[in-house]
Amino acid sequence: MLAPVRIYGDQRSGNCLKVKWTADHLGIPYEWHEVDVLKGQTRTEDFLAINPAGQVPCLERPDGRILAQSNAIIFHLARGSKLIPSDDFDQAKMLEWMFWEQYSHEPFIAVRRFRKAFQNLSDDEIDPELMAKGRRALGVMEMRLLSRDFMVRNHVTLADIALVAYTRVADEGGFDLDEFLGVRAWVARVENELGIDPDAGRVSPVL
Amino acid sequence: MLAPVRIYGDQRSGNCLKVKWTADHLGIPYEWHEVDVLKGQTRTEDFLAINPAGQVPCLERPDGRILAQSNAIIFHLARGSKLIPSDDFDQAKMLEWMFWEQYSHEPFIAVRRFRKAFQNLSDDEIDPELMAKGRRALGVMEMRLLSRDFMVRNHVTLADIALVAYTRVADEGGFDLDEFLGVRAWVARVENELGIDPDAGRVSPVL
Repeated sequence: MLAPVRIYGDQRSGNCLKVKWTADHLGIPYEWHEVDVLKGQTRTEDFLAINPAGQVPCLERPDGRILAQSNAIIFHLARGSKLIPSDDFDQAKMLEWMFWEQYSHEPFIAVRRFRKAFQNLSDDEIDPELMAKGRRALGVMEMRLLSRDFMVRNHVTLADIALVAYTRVADEGGFDLDEFLGVRAWVARVENELGIDPDAGRVSPVL
Repeated sequence: MLAPVRIYGDQRSGNCLKVKWTADHLGIPYEWHEVDVLKGQTRTEDFLAINPAGQVPCLERPDGRILAQSNAIIFHLARGSKLIPSDDFDQAKMLEWMFWEQYSHEPFIAVRRFRKAFQNLSDDEIDPELMAKGRRALGVMEMRLLSRDFMVRNHVTLADIALVAYTRVADEGGFDLDEFLGVRAWVARVENELGIDPDAGRVSPVL
């Protein structure tokens, strides 16, 4: 019997949920170890011994080895599964979107959601760049999804899991997905494929 | 004979140089197509047709397919080479550092260098967070390099290439590598392994 891996994560964090969804989808057994980011639990001495970068999610393997960074963890968990295209170019294309997510999407869409829904800041108190750059990211996705159902292949890959994490709760950051209908339809499609409850991980239920 | 790939890039950009160094190291023939980011050449209609995200570097394969995101491109170019560990966990660990680079290193160290060396802003005009978070990133690397010569294996991998790109010019962003002696020694080691001229891609020569 496989010893379960341990996942350290905060269930309100899209980055952490990526790992949960991937493990659930692949039927990989795990112990979830909740770490409350807002209470500073990623900056304690004990946690920094696990991940010196002070970030969740982290994966601890049965052999004690630790892996950090959501997109690296899901790449590791999904090796050999259909979530990673076997074709070399498609695999690189999937990674392209996963790097783009961390550089050009998450820092605006997830951060604006954090400011609004967790720090309860008003629009005036939030850097206006976050809205502009987040909208730009949604526009890039909309263009990509004009001619396809998923980001890379004609089925869910890790690129969809990485990107859906904060796109599905973008409304909590003040983004209006009615302006990005292709993106909105894709969110429903990915949630459906992965069996994600539309209310899961939300601060407030879907209206 | 292999038709060369085409690389679109700006030779002052560390992200673009990662692709050049990887191709050079592996002896992959390419045509370099210089794109001047400061002159807005990533936002022209012609360039957006190549990469709707409006970013360099981009790789154009002989079959016309396009790949973006520096770390995805070098992953694609280096498939099957020693630059990517064959062990599954080490490969994921390498990706961990590459995602960390784009999320927790580049946005502070590369951006502060851009503000200072390209936009000629004074320290007062630069967001103080960039120095604090950049120093934190260098500290995380310093800890990692206390007990090892390279980031993942005992030889250069893509994690070293990704991280050296802006670390080697961090001084141009006002960071002092004399405070991070392990990092400084590692930069010299990686430049030496890859045959990178210490003056290459710098705004000003090494003092």
